[in-house]
Amino acid sequence: VKYELYYWPHIQGRGEFVRLALEEGAADYVDVARLPESEGGGRAAVARLLEDAADGRTPFAPPVLKAGTFLISQTANILQYLGPRLKLVPKDEATRLWAHGLQLTLTDLVVEAHDTHHPIAKSLYYEDQKPEALRRAADFRALRLPKFLGYFERVLAGNPGGDRHLVGKSLTYIDLSMFQVIAGLSYAFPRAMEAMSRKHPKLAVLHRRVQERPRIAAYLASSRRIPFNDRGVFRHYPELDEA
Amino acid sequence: VKYELYYWPHIQGRGEFVRLALEEGAADYVDVARLPESEGGGRAAVARLLEDAADGRTPFAPPVLKAGTFLISQTANILQYLGPRLKLVPKDEATRLWAHGLQLTLTDLVVEAHDTHHPIAKSLYYEDQKPEALRRAADFRALRLPKFLGYFERVLAGNPGGDRHLVGKSLTYIDLSMFQVIAGLSYAFPRAMEAMSRKHPKLAVLHRRVQERPRIAAYLASSRRIPFNDRGVFRHYPELDEA
Repeated sequence: VKYELYYWPHIQGRGEFVRLALEEGAADYVDVARLPESEGGGRAAVARLLEDAADGRTPFAPPVLKAGTFLISQTANILQYLGPRLKLVPKDEATRLWAHGLQLTLTDLVVEAHDTHHPIAKSLYYEDQKPEALRRAADFRALRLPKFLGYFERVLAGNPGGDRHLVGKSLTYIDLSMFQVIAGLSYAFPRAMEAMSRKHPKLAVLHRRVQERPRIAAYLASSRRIPFNDRGVFRHYPELDEA
Repeated sequence: VKYELYYWPHIQGRGEFVRLALEEGAADYVDVARLPESEGGGRAAVARLLEDAADGRTPFAPPVLKAGTFLISQTANILQYLGPRLKLVPKDEATRLWAHGLQLTLTDLVVEAHDTHHPIAKSLYYEDQKPEALRRAADFRALRLPKFLGYFERVLAGNPGGDRHLVGKSLTYIDLSMFQVIAGLSYAFPRAMEAMSRKHPKLAVLHRRVQERPRIAAYLASSRRIPFNDRGVFRHYPELDEA
């Protein structure tokens, strides 16, 4: 199967979780919107997909994965589909459900990280909701970030398969997603995350180990990896990282 | 299988989506925390489950479903597990993935509905974030609510199986969840939803038809259905519903 990923070409965003799985899984894939417009790429490719009902099954938003006749939307849904096919999750149902639950918990964390800079409305600029962002970011750093990272540190420490992975005895897409979340949070909140990293040493090790995997390292060094920027989910506004 | 649902006993919240599926599916289940404390119920039952690592697989938050040796967390994950078992989703993989994507889109809408009254912090009372809530609710009513409901109206209209259901030719858990979202939004935003209902007539019909299903009607009339209140996801603060 040749996979087609449809996601915005100018940000890592939620599509990055899918890109990391496709890269580590050495999948044959096209990141469609990153093709030139003359080859059917660009943001227009995503827009077309969201207008064009395929059998009345039009997704609400990207990322969307085309796999043969399948059209799958919602990041965690795409990952649970790819997981067994790319050998990025054990096959037994109990473990797949556990992994998917963890991915959905990471999804919740990503929403909260996004809302630190957009607590009022996606339709407004950050500058138009800055006082509210300062308040929300303070709560995020003080309470939510420690709660989520403390949870995942405990999951890692308690994994019967060993604390090198969140699930089972080898790498899963959850480890890749955890890497991406830590990378994004470290970009957005370098000060807060320095303290977090000392308190959650196992997560810090997991992040480094994923980063050093040959396929991931090659991807991160390539032009396929879009740099973090101030349009994505994780944004660095220094004032949101201050005590 | 006798299912055990673990969820807060004083609110509908996210657990309600699971309760509706169990009720419509005529499942043999216990809503554990609604038992008396002397029988192992109460909020303490949920707290114990979140402390007690089962094979190192402790969920982050309720709802959690125990099904034999399986422990499943995250509402949409529980529903995709129950779906085929309670005959509340077609069995083919493409349709199950489509249904799950829709459920996750409803999950996103539920988060945004919640955040209208808690845009800054779950740790603060509504009264401590009221100016921000007024701003966020205005955007929600003007842009987000129409965007989400417009999308689901189109899904209903475009369903090849007919516009009596969101997915396929018969009732699925997505229809139940859509009913619950409309019920909750109508409780929280009666004015906004009256206008919405006129603009999205197919969704309004779906809501009524689900409400009138014999098992759902019996459930809604029973003491098992917790009334909406000002502690759940959907809360009625009249000022958040004003133009």
